[in-house]
Amino acid sequence: MRVGEGTVVAPGPGEVRLNVAYCGICGTDTHIYHGAMDKRVKMPQVIGHEASATVAEVGEGVTGFAPGDAVVVRPLDNRLETPADRGHSHICKNLKFIGIDSPGAFQNSWTVPAFTLHKAPVGTDLKLAALCEPLAVACHDVTRAGLKPGELAVVMGGGPIGMLVALVAREAGAQVVLSEVNPFRLKLASELGIEAVHPGETDLVALCAEKSGGSGADVVFEVSGAKAAAASMTDLLAIRGRIVVVAIYPQPVEINLFHFFWKEIQMLGARVYEPADYEKALRLIADKALPLEKLITFVKPLTELPQAFRELDENPNAMKVLIDCRAQA
Amino acid sequence: MRVGEGTVVAPGPGEVRLNVAYCGICGTDTHIYHGAMDKRVKMPQVIGHEASATVAEVGEGVTGFAPGDAVVVRPLDNRLETPADRGHSHICKNLKFIGIDSPGAFQNSWTVPAFTLHKAPVGTDLKLAALCEPLAVACHDVTRAGLKPGELAVVMGGGPIGMLVALVAREAGAQVVLSEVNPFRLKLASELGIEAVHPGETDLVALCAEKSGGSGADVVFEVSGAKAAAASMTDLLAIRGRIVVVAIYPQPVEINLFHFFWKEIQMLGARVYEPADYEKALRLIADKALPLEKLITFVKPLTELPQAFRELDENPNAMKVLIDCRAQA
Repeated sequence: MRVGEGTVVAPGPGEVRLNVAYCGICGTDTHIYHGAMDKRVKMPQVIGHEASATVAEVGEGVTGFAPGDAVVVRPLDNRLETPADRGHSHICKNLKFIGIDSPGAFQNSWTVPAFTLHKAPVGTDLKLAALCEPLAVACHDVTRAGLKPGELAVVMGGGPIGMLVALVAREAGAQVVLSEVNPFRLKLASELGIEAVHPGETDLVALCAEKSGGSGADVVFEVSGAKAAAASMTDLLAIRGRIVVVAIYPQPVEINLFHFFWKEIQMLGARVYEPADYEKALRLIADKALPLEKLITFVKPLTELPQAFRELDENPNAMKVLIDCRAQA
Repeated sequence: MRVGEGTVVAPGPGEVRLNVAYCGICGTDTHIYHGAMDKRVKMPQVIGHEASATVAEVGEGVTGFAPGDAVVVRPLDNRLETPADRGHSHICKNLKFIGIDSPGAFQNSWTVPAFTLHKAPVGTDLKLAALCEPLAVACHDVTRAGLKPGELAVVMGGGPIGMLVALVAREAGAQVVLSEVNPFRLKLASELGIEAVHPGETDLVALCAEKSGGSGADVVFEVSGAKAAAASMTDLLAIRGRIVVVAIYPQPVEINLFHFFWKEIQMLGARVYEPADYEKALRLIADKALPLEKLITFVKPLTELPQAFRELDENPNAMKVLIDCRAQA
């Protein structure tokens, strides 16, 4: 990974050129950094997809955006969608992910299709707006769960996404318990006002029963990707409880299908986000509804991008790391 | 297993004494026969729970039923239901299954709570009505799937329940493909007008794609209980496809959670039935909407119950075996 001179790409028809403000480093970016996604990422390539920005110039035919507008980018390119996708644009079979399959946001100037943009409300902090992408993931997860006020939700895994899911679930009116093994993350969750427990130290089944009048959890968000979590998640649920699979499991894992039958459990996957999730996330950011600032571990300028990746790699306690991509004064 | 003299139990308040007409042998009955459920079944005990009957006498306070009425029994006793079950009576935590946890229907005279009864429409064939219980299972499975006309449903496993699920799914207007390895069952399915394929001989993924304009199956009913089916079922599904877990898996099995994430798949369990499923099943039987007669392998009198279990055990091709429980003339 190196820092170098890029090219300013003039916006074509339907495109917008952005001055990137901040861009977060995603777990996927670290996978790319480790060479795990070389099949999709053609080197050399600029990556990064968690960006806030201001509009620099708009291409032909673009309406609704003007230079100076604060925006965030929903980095999904569904232009190869077909009728076989049945309208599920955000997870269409030939979806291209901007920043992985095409150039990303770790640069001053970035040119993207206008349909990927959401305008940030006036006064939105662009640093926090760089959390819009992972926050939209969390909003999508909570929406997929159909989470209702008063329900008991267990979030398994307290990384950045797990923490955001817990915050959004609580904002939706649910009781939330976060299950996590890392002491730093447990402490951070507590500081965010989220009840957080170590599953090796607390009997989660008993805790869920206690908090629900004996019924069990309504929803489990599986964000950890751990085999042990997959094996135990069905134990926690009430009759007709729901599991949302947020984590990416590269290999099949053992699941207790007997519990699915016995309690008529439901499990559903959740991937990326739809436009409404972005709008919800932007509102939460603009309203300062969530303590997002506390999730930012550090911010580094674009010139120190390689150091930022190294530091993130070496720090098991890191949450979100942002890159300040603004052209240096 | 032996045949002997039973006791005629006079109906108490809220109970009804039945003259049993026919009672089918369920897979669960054969498990009991093999000693696999000795923890729940207290010997000696009359088993059997797939019964049609006529009312012999009604106990105090019973309304809506009179001697001579043709009925079927929904063998679920939810009298120990609690608020923690949240109204899911049919799968409440302390559910008792009549014919397993309490005496069953392989007898001439059977006394049951009146709330378990559904009146069969006038003229209903009581032999076919004995299929109401497994047919209600199939109706419940199809309802849980939310199956819509024109959707593509794959049924994995062509035993009695799989065959009934396929028939109910087709009656609901779906395109149906049954996956089964037993040549006899494949042939029987074809005779019932159901497209049936051997998953080792037909590329099911390609078949589903072909039948759905490239999308994949809308619903997979997993009725086989086979590890290989659990491992492959997620391959068949369209984006946002649904899996209904009907089979009972005693051990955890490997599931491809990546597909859940990637295609936002949904999986839900389905167990027994609710009252509406019984009403649906009774209507299908009374209307002769399904070729149920073809699923009856043989009928034996109650005096030959042990032989019936032995023959069923020795015949891998058997579908439904009915016991004629009517008092011999």
